[in-house]
Amino acid sequence: MKHSTIPVAQTVVYHCKQRGIKNIVISPGSRNAPLTISFTEDPFFNCFSIVDERCAAFFALGMAQNQKQPVVVVCTSGSALLNYYPAVSEAFYSDIPIIIISADRPFYKIDVGDGQTIRQDNVFARHIGYSANLKQDVSHATDRIKRYVPEILGNDSIKEIQQNIQRYNDSELNTAFGIVYDKSAPVHINVPFEEPLYNTVDNPTTSPIVAIEHVEHDVLNVEGFRDIWNASKRKMVLVGVNHPNMVDQELLDILANDPSVIVMEETTSNLHHPNFFSSIDSIIAPIEKSSDNKILFERLRPDILLTFGGLVVSKKIKAFLREFTPKHHWHVDERKAYDTFFCLSQHFKHNINTFLIEFLRDSKHVESDYYPYWSKVKANYETKREQYLKEIPFTDMLAFAHITKTIPEGYQLQLANSSTVRYAQLFHIKASLHVFCNRGTSGIDGSTSTAIGCSIFNKAPTLLITGDLSFFYDSNALWNKYMRPDFRIIVINNSGGGIFRILPGKEDSENFETFFETKHGLSAEHLCKMYDLEYTKAHTAHGLKLALANFYEDSARPKVLEINTPRLLNNKILLGYFDFIS
Amino acid sequence: MKHSTIPVAQTVVYHCKQRGIKNIVISPGSRNAPLTISFTEDPFFNCFSIVDERCAAFFALGMAQNQKQPVVVVCTSGSALLNYYPAVSEAFYSDIPIIIISADRPFYKIDVGDGQTIRQDNVFARHIGYSANLKQDVSHATDRIKRYVPEILGNDSIKEIQQNIQRYNDSELNTAFGIVYDKSAPVHINVPFEEPLYNTVDNPTTSPIVAIEHVEHDVLNVEGFRDIWNASKRKMVLVGVNHPNMVDQELLDILANDPSVIVMEETTSNLHHPNFFSSIDSIIAPIEKSSDNKILFERLRPDILLTFGGLVVSKKIKAFLREFTPKHHWHVDERKAYDTFFCLSQHFKHNINTFLIEFLRDSKHVESDYYPYWSKVKANYETKREQYLKEIPFTDMLAFAHITKTIPEGYQLQLANSSTVRYAQLFHIKASLHVFCNRGTSGIDGSTSTAIGCSIFNKAPTLLITGDLSFFYDSNALWNKYMRPDFRIIVINNSGGGIFRILPGKEDSENFETFFETKHGLSAEHLCKMYDLEYTKAHTAHGLKLALANFYEDSARPKVLEINTPRLLNNKILLGYFDFIS
Repeated sequence: MKHSTIPVAQTVVYHCKQRGIKNIVISPGSRNAPLTISFTEDPFFNCFSIVDERCAAFFALGMAQNQKQPVVVVCTSGSALLNYYPAVSEAFYSDIPIIIISADRPFYKIDVGDGQTIRQDNVFARHIGYSANLKQDVSHATDRIKRYVPEILGNDSIKEIQQNIQRYNDSELNTAFGIVYDKSAPVHINVPFEEPLYNTVDNPTTSPIVAIEHVEHDVLNVEGFRDIWNASKRKMVLVGVNHPNMVDQELLDILANDPSVIVMEETTSNLHHPNFFSSIDSIIAPIEKSSDNKILFERLRPDILLTFGGLVVSKKIKAFLREFTPKHHWHVDERKAYDTFFCLSQHFKHNINTFLIEFLRDSKHVESDYYPYWSKVKANYETKREQYLKEIPFTDMLAFAHITKTIPEGYQLQLANSSTVRYAQLFHIKASLHVFCNRGTSGIDGSTSTAIGCSIFNKAPTLLITGDLSFFYDSNALWNKYMRPDFRIIVINNSGGGIFRILPGKEDSENFETFFETKHGLSAEHLCKMYDLEYTKAHTAHGLKLALANFYEDSARPKVLEINTPRLLNNKILLGYFDFIS
Repeated sequence: MKHSTIPVAQTVVYHCKQRGIKNIVISPGSRNAPLTISFTEDPFFNCFSIVDERCAAFFALGMAQNQKQPVVVVCTSGSALLNYYPAVSEAFYSDIPIIIISADRPFYKIDVGDGQTIRQDNVFARHIGYSANLKQDVSHATDRIKRYVPEILGNDSIKEIQQNIQRYNDSELNTAFGIVYDKSAPVHINVPFEEPLYNTVDNPTTSPIVAIEHVEHDVLNVEGFRDIWNASKRKMVLVGVNHPNMVDQELLDILANDPSVIVMEETTSNLHHPNFFSSIDSIIAPIEKSSDNKILFERLRPDILLTFGGLVVSKKIKAFLREFTPKHHWHVDERKAYDTFFCLSQHFKHNINTFLIEFLRDSKHVESDYYPYWSKVKANYETKREQYLKEIPFTDMLAFAHITKTIPEGYQLQLANSSTVRYAQLFHIKASLHVFCNRGTSGIDGSTSTAIGCSIFNKAPTLLITGDLSFFYDSNALWNKYMRPDFRIIVINNSGGGIFRILPGKEDSENFETFFETKHGLSAEHLCKMYDLEYTKAHTAHGLKLALANFYEDSARPKVLEINTPRLLNNKILLGYFDFIS
């Protein structure tokens, strides 16, 4: 097996292998050749080649999201690295472990006018778990080069210097990898390489030391909190983005059947029970519109708010809980707790399942009219929604109703930002679907790449639902030869940023169409031809039903279904829905 | 005329207008609505709408490159901003004044789990002229919001607080804009906005204070240096990236006719004289291959190296001058001097033309065989090159020979990285062409967007020559409704990163094709259909001649010419050229 001759390349790759990190996404370049060679020559690794680094990093993020395991992305020196930043920030806020490895020039070639050279070390400082800036090797350096290495000015022999460098690099790598696992955070490893870059040896010449630390978790102590819980008649459980199968259904059933508990969850929470409130805005929007809104909001205000999972999609629940704050806000998460409602009082640093097992052990069902009251409200809007859907013309809303109903059982569902994930909250999602969305930064910049990455190793097929702006923004995602034939994309094309039409205060003017809605006449058809994907389209309810009839059938190529909806009607129908159920 | 009600939005827009900054590139969003409204409602500004922020920033960079004037880019909060980073780093290293204005959430909404919210302040810290983090207004804030504003805790009235905030923001803006003009550097202005975002007033409610500072330049003193110059028999002038028409031709003629002077310049130097050496590698590669290379390099080694302009494309001249260092290296630039050859001895902080007028005033032509000797070498490779071009099959090299010969007089020429700009160095470029290339970071990430931006206000039409990887990487550049019908793109499609085939040390293996060359079968044809561009293709010398015959004629739409060259042959022909002329 071939390895790069360069010790620091051998070292980085060795650390990955010892940690069991198998998936490596590589973008082309010359400076990163030592890493590319060492990774691709070792059959232990699954290597993927993606040219556009923005897509490469989101692709890696999708894989890590699906696998709950670190994934490596490797790029060459220069601005290539900066294209990773959107995905790095998403990983940072979504606690997804991606490991950025950037090849760099030797330090004395930085800021002297060399090509593809920027200040790479610590470049993601504000959104990264750790930045390891490795030292360059000197063992194979020429005398001319050695004069730039300050360590060499002392009396140590080259061998001793190289040993010190090896120790330093091992220690930095152990710290970085430790943080990847402990914090589930992205880390950045910057690796300077001296030329020549392409030489290989049959056996590695280094003996890196990998130190794997096991982090002890706090002992869970819920005493006191359980008493408060058992004494309270109004408890709200609010769940943000949450990986599927994180919580035992028996625990959820306990919560669901307690009349003093309301569970508010979202499509991205991946929790299911008929008693749960899964369309948060359908509860809150009618209250906002009511003349009795203060009284109703007081009725909804919980004494205790228990939250877990990542970011919450609904803006309305955030606004409500910031105004009508609960007495207690407890957040359960192994790593972090955001003070989203400006009243966080307790952070249980534990896995949610571990926490609930202990916490609900002696819990009592408390008599209360909290759940029964809101349950009636929910039954009411659910009936009205069905009625409304029968009355409305073909629009985004009707398209989502059809689509969500017909996704086959067991699929993985990726939702793009932002219209898509918001519309999805209005409909019932089958319990067997696993739902994902990049809600860390809620960007439109990598939804398709993430979905493709997320699909690669998943047992079931993946469907991405996306809007036109998200889809065209990340069009390079399709420049990807690893797409599975069972991968499916539905593009809801409303000819612009339809979400902006829904916002309050905007006016219907040419400026609005150009600078907010960014109206366009693009179609996905040409991209499908370019990247050899099967393409169908629909622009009526009947056409959509026909198109969906065989959309999920086996095929030799991935499929894209583009649904054209009427640009000027969508917002009226959506806003009309909230009026109708009020 | 309408303005945003929000004072800080009025202030930012007022500063831009007072400075005469007219060109504003806006990406869609809601948080930036106050800026979008204020910019687009004022007919003073030319506003452009570009959805993909990566493209938007490169488009702005191209405009600023062409105009030598600052251009503003505006985006919403969250990861949108991070997509600007590749262009920011290019601007930073190329001294191009782009002004990044990002809308932000109020500071107390950061890191609490709100959507589209990251740590925006100082996010470009490593590659920015200045980061101004403005303070949010309080004048229109509700009481609930005011409790988060620390300034309000004191005894000052809201009016006094608002005045202090206005003073602070004015001062930050004056500093930032001062640096844009003085250093020609990119700056970042981060502006937090509280909702509501869409309200407007007919008359501005603020009176910002714009303070324009005039920076005094050092007095130019060339005494002593001129004597060294006049006493030396071996002087090399090496020019990097240089804006057209920066140096009077009489000054260049003096240098060109001095037998003790060799002027080494590149396509991107935009300098012309028959005595100049414009194909640097054609001089150096044969020396490298010669058994007498040490003697020949000593012959070429200058006593004085005078440099101006930005980054130098040729790696070979950098390697040569780092090994065979001159006694003196003087760099002329108003702002900065890189120690590219590790022997910089003097930085003249002046405009090159001002410097040369003064410096060459009493210069004498010095008798020397320095120019005559190398002039013969040059005549020799020029003859051999013509001969070689007659012998070779249709490849990248032959395509470049045809293309460079047939570009109409007066065109603006944009060269993509990296094969394209390297090939272009091998051929004569007409003196009337203005040549640009993103050599600050030498990235492939925004060549097309930059070219489109650069074309917008240019008198003459623009031609972009690009490779396939650069072109497909920046495919979203074409999602741009401002493209002029006379804009032209030539894509040299060699089905992958042909440049990697030229590198020493690589092997011909499947791994090489996948991870270095990144072989693909993509065509530009579908993108042209998608974005309504005229498309032609060629894959033979005859076909290319035919296609070029009417390629530059007037047309209703921009045109793309795709040239397919043989993937496995290109590198052999290029490397053969250097053997042939040796």
